[in-house]
Amino acid sequence: MKKIKPRTLSGFMELMPQNQVYFNEMAQRLRESFSLYGFTPLDTPLMEAAEILLAKGGGETEKQVYRLTKGDTDLAVRYELTASLAKYVALHQGSLTFPFRRYEIGKVMRGERAQRGRFREFYQADIDIIGDGKLDIINEAEIPSVIYRSMTALGLRRFVIHVNNRKVLNGFFEILEISNATEAMRAVDKIEKIGEQKLTEHLTTDVGLTHVQSAELIALVTHQGDPFEALDKYRGRNETFDIGMDELSAVARYMSAFGVPDTHFKIDISIARGLDYYTGTVYETFLEDHPEVGSICSGGRYDELAEYYTDRKFPGVGISIGLSRLFYILQEQQMLNPAVLSAPADVLIIPMTEDLSHPISLATQMREAGLRVQLYSEDKKFKSKVAYADKLGIPYVAFLGEDEIKSGQVTVKDMRSGEQTQASAGLIIAGLAEKIKIQRNAPPIAETK
Amino acid sequence: MKKIKPRTLSGFMELMPQNQVYFNEMAQRLRESFSLYGFTPLDTPLMEAAEILLAKGGGETEKQVYRLTKGDTDLAVRYELTASLAKYVALHQGSLTFPFRRYEIGKVMRGERAQRGRFREFYQADIDIIGDGKLDIINEAEIPSVIYRSMTALGLRRFVIHVNNRKVLNGFFEILEISNATEAMRAVDKIEKIGEQKLTEHLTTDVGLTHVQSAELIALVTHQGDPFEALDKYRGRNETFDIGMDELSAVARYMSAFGVPDTHFKIDISIARGLDYYTGTVYETFLEDHPEVGSICSGGRYDELAEYYTDRKFPGVGISIGLSRLFYILQEQQMLNPAVLSAPADVLIIPMTEDLSHPISLATQMREAGLRVQLYSEDKKFKSKVAYADKLGIPYVAFLGEDEIKSGQVTVKDMRSGEQTQASAGLIIAGLAEKIKIQRNAPPIAETK
Repeated sequence: MKKIKPRTLSGFMELMPQNQVYFNEMAQRLRESFSLYGFTPLDTPLMEAAEILLAKGGGETEKQVYRLTKGDTDLAVRYELTASLAKYVALHQGSLTFPFRRYEIGKVMRGERAQRGRFREFYQADIDIIGDGKLDIINEAEIPSVIYRSMTALGLRRFVIHVNNRKVLNGFFEILEISNATEAMRAVDKIEKIGEQKLTEHLTTDVGLTHVQSAELIALVTHQGDPFEALDKYRGRNETFDIGMDELSAVARYMSAFGVPDTHFKIDISIARGLDYYTGTVYETFLEDHPEVGSICSGGRYDELAEYYTDRKFPGVGISIGLSRLFYILQEQQMLNPAVLSAPADVLIIPMTEDLSHPISLATQMREAGLRVQLYSEDKKFKSKVAYADKLGIPYVAFLGEDEIKSGQVTVKDMRSGEQTQASAGLIIAGLAEKIKIQRNAPPIAETK
Repeated sequence: MKKIKPRTLSGFMELMPQNQVYFNEMAQRLRESFSLYGFTPLDTPLMEAAEILLAKGGGETEKQVYRLTKGDTDLAVRYELTASLAKYVALHQGSLTFPFRRYEIGKVMRGERAQRGRFREFYQADIDIIGDGKLDIINEAEIPSVIYRSMTALGLRRFVIHVNNRKVLNGFFEILEISNATEAMRAVDKIEKIGEQKLTEHLTTDVGLTHVQSAELIALVTHQGDPFEALDKYRGRNETFDIGMDELSAVARYMSAFGVPDTHFKIDISIARGLDYYTGTVYETFLEDHPEVGSICSGGRYDELAEYYTDRKFPGVGISIGLSRLFYILQEQQMLNPAVLSAPADVLIIPMTEDLSHPISLATQMREAGLRVQLYSEDKKFKSKVAYADKLGIPYVAFLGEDEIKSGQVTVKDMRSGEQTQASAGLIIAGLAEKIKIQRNAPPIAETK
């Protein structure tokens, strides 16, 4: 038979078993974290009618969409989870209860040019809180707490959640009568790279700001210490600004009650988020030791979730984690926790008798105690059987020979220490279950610093 | 703005939040069950190069495949998980350790005609054990145990795993010199519908069997009691048959050591499985009260997993559960367990003060104890706030007013009983955590019989 050369498409993440365990553990910990905040899981279809997904339309994204025709249906694969949520809310608005909190961890596809750490098929993990007509500011204040708990659950320690408010920014630009705010903010982003002097030059000559505008803008974004000090002097001059200030204060005020330490939270006036979509609080999250990877968890408040599908107003606030990319970065930085049990089993049972009834019964007993067990019954030399456990990183090997069966004992070898223990099945199982339980609590990520 | 009518494509399952909770709980319990047997999770890409997925080629399936071109790549969406596994094993054969046990629960797509309970995008849950060159019979004996534990974990009780062996069947047909075995087995399948007499007629006139062949075949498949009694007289006449008999005996012998009760296991000579793919033990699983839905979990032993991609022999044994279809059937039969906590939260906190620091702190404390908490802060009447919990099925509502804050107490209402309790936050949290823990153990399926 002519063979087809096996291959996986470039940009499609396909993990080896051990890495898959880490990835799944990360996803699972995100699920648990999101659940603690009352987010319900959704699992929307991977494909939608093209008109639905492309309702927003335009630009680079549309070119990246995977699109196909089946029968006479024009289909598109989702390239983000937001459009699917918007459609879901618009379609099921009559039967949903608002505020509606959902999370979705799912694959999306974008036909980007394949690059290291950029994927064409990848996971996003999104949470959103959707209001019916309006949505209280407390929801915006709660988001940093969800981020903090989620990142901590993964095992991350050295990260900071940067928070800003679009109304503050927009109001500030109105007060200073700066019309090309987007361009100005983009320029400000370069301050660390090019320095204050070059930035002033760029702002005044290329962006078209006056020297006064430029100076005030730079003073604001470079202000050290409490950002409210720098902002307070603009109070009372613009309604949008004042509302934004109240919102930002409320968000900051409740941080510690929400369990977010000061060290992990920062008001950052330079955070704008590219999209015009956001209208209130915005969030970005940076790894302190790896600022070069950019924000690992971002989002914000928006006013119009489903405007392409319905007249009803659905404001919301949400964040998104590029989970495949985050995983890729962490494993590349060698931050996967070696204490994690990434083996497919906790125990390998090696039978030493012809009749397998006893080893099988032992496996059954162990499984009933929650242990993950493989029974090795291939026709191999003893050494190869033990090597199987070794290669897979299975931490314990149990031997069951005639002598053990007669005396009602089991011999277990701890593969790391080499230590062998003999005892009754009951005692062995209880001991292993205890040890494995501890190892299972190891978070997927460990920071070496 | 012109609105696009929101809709979900026909045949694409999109669940409402409560049903999604049941579905996810089913998937989670399958994952846990598979893990106990040392299966490692894989998550292969949804799309592959078309030549990979269509290597097997041909027939109805190829017409159902979702196929598209992106750039100059010819892509196909997977329509089953087996081809992806075969490619994975062939591609990574050098770094995998065999026997390789993996499970995958993932979406596949088939452009079938949309029908009630038939989906175009749906989940399959597959497990496979892949050997390198050979694979011990014990692996085949272990599969019914995985099925039993998985189905039981879902909450199913009244089901029977039917087991047969293709070598026994093939040997039997060789002994009787029946050449059109496939057709004969397909005819035998109708026995319950048409009765013995009509079947004899059909077998002799349409299928071309002699009266002796027909009588022996019918006698075998209708034999009551121990099937080995009916089979034993053919021993020693055909090598394939004898090997099959030894395999089938081994599988049956170890069932109770593997924890499968007699009531849930049946040797069934009439099970053949359609595909030519299977070469040894084959499995089908039926709901006793709903035989009309057909097998809910099927599979078997095969010799050639990856023959389209590599010369190396990878025999294996596996089963597949059509998870979306199974969920659909169970919810249609009203078998979803009402005791399951399908609400997005365990507790709704309703603040009764302007300042939210205390209610937020309470929420944080509760979350640290593992409780899923929503804080209701929308500007609504008190009644609407409580109605929110009621609509979502949130079992407990906590009130925090000035009095409670001053006295360090929390009032909690049990939404089902209406009972109100006041106590310190610590006591309330411990009590709720205990109650919720019990409710979380409820299996997703409950049989009413």
